[in-house]
Amino acid sequence: MGLELYLDLLSQPCRAVYIFAKKNGIPFELCSVDLRKGQHLSDVFAQVNPRQKVPALKGGDFILTESVAILLYLARKYKVPDHWYPQDTQACAHVDEYLAWQHTTLRRNCLRLLWHKVMLPVYLGEPVSPEMLTATLAELDMTLQVFEDKFLQNKAFLAGPHISLADLIAITELMHPVGAGCQVFEGRPKLAAWHQRVEAAVGEVLFQEAHEVILKAKDSQPADPTIKRKLMPRVLSMIQ
Amino acid sequence: MGLELYLDLLSQPCRAVYIFAKKNGIPFELCSVDLRKGQHLSDVFAQVNPRQKVPALKGGDFILTESVAILLYLARKYKVPDHWYPQDTQACAHVDEYLAWQHTTLRRNCLRLLWHKVMLPVYLGEPVSPEMLTATLAELDMTLQVFEDKFLQNKAFLAGPHISLADLIAITELMHPVGAGCQVFEGRPKLAAWHQRVEAAVGEVLFQEAHEVILKAKDSQPADPTIKRKLMPRVLSMIQ
Repeated sequence: MGLELYLDLLSQPCRAVYIFAKKNGIPFELCSVDLRKGQHLSDVFAQVNPRQKVPALKGGDFILTESVAILLYLARKYKVPDHWYPQDTQACAHVDEYLAWQHTTLRRNCLRLLWHKVMLPVYLGEPVSPEMLTATLAELDMTLQVFEDKFLQNKAFLAGPHISLADLIAITELMHPVGAGCQVFEGRPKLAAWHQRVEAAVGEVLFQEAHEVILKAKDSQPADPTIKRKLMPRVLSMIQ
Repeated sequence: MGLELYLDLLSQPCRAVYIFAKKNGIPFELCSVDLRKGQHLSDVFAQVNPRQKVPALKGGDFILTESVAILLYLARKYKVPDHWYPQDTQACAHVDEYLAWQHTTLRRNCLRLLWHKVMLPVYLGEPVSPEMLTATLAELDMTLQVFEDKFLQNKAFLAGPHISLADLIAITELMHPVGAGCQVFEGRPKLAAWHQRVEAAVGEVLFQEAHEVILKAKDSQPADPTIKRKLMPRVLSMIQ
């Protein structure tokens, strides 16, 4: 049985998995799970991931969730070029360090920003106070400073001279605030140059294709009231 | 230059790193960083980790932070028994899946519980409302159910028949609420049996030694006002 990837490119970890699989020529069946239609809450998808989250990977009886785990699995199984997850112990450790760090920092900030600025007011019809939005922006700004100073430093990519899984996870996060209309790269020349390098390493066409959905997130249609009722508790818990 | 590990066994990821290094006979110098004395905020420690967090690893010029990255690095560099981080792609993926999942779930819940129940009221003199404590306990309870149903299932350990890094990270988390006086294993026979297996696999003496500090956390002396002033913003941001 072939490899199935359950994705919605609105989700940043889904974009990372999608780009990684495409870029490395890994054959897969794309199984779309439309989050804005609540398809992740369906009984059908619960058979794949009872925790009702994307991305999810299925290959025969083997099911795997969590984007970081999926990316590492694909890297190992399909023997992709070394730079994605280097054999060198120290370089690999720096990829792991970033992957561990981002869960409660950049990921949290970018997710909250998209929801506070676009998805709650536009899609769910729940305005967010200007104070809350300012605080969310300030948090992201502080995290970006740590990202530049501690992780990127003066390197071409996060783990050295070549693109790795860390860069892919990071850039797909940062496109979330961009999708929300925040110019995160403005006034941050080091970050902007890194963005260009990552996009070039991925390939511009693939990069743009993977980000089409998020760049149109601002035009989301308001949610159906039934969907909204189902989604609200999950959304609030996700962005707490 | 030898391996230095900067740890405070009050911290759950530090306990995981400590147990792992000791159990596998990895030679290291223990560099104590007393969090309750604010030693992580010192200029000396900032030389090791400018982000002022433990655990941190230093070996010559190489510095590494984030417990998951440190554990993976030690596992690779010191060629520890395979079961800790299996070569088998699927078993390894299940370890990665747990390690990715826990950051924003079990780790968050256990950390908040310790601070809400003990560290804020006893150590920092900041009582927490009963409503807040009830909500924190309820969140932990829901997470434990996912832990049992999705991750532990009916296996001996999280990734199969042998102990792995996933179990070590998980048990050191769960000893946080235990240190706060919560009987998390009561009424959860599956979890309790797993706890016994993990403790036996680690070795009872080492397990108890690593948990001495957290099991006495309730007896923490109130913080000095200067330390409290320094710590409060960081604590609030950490447990948000």
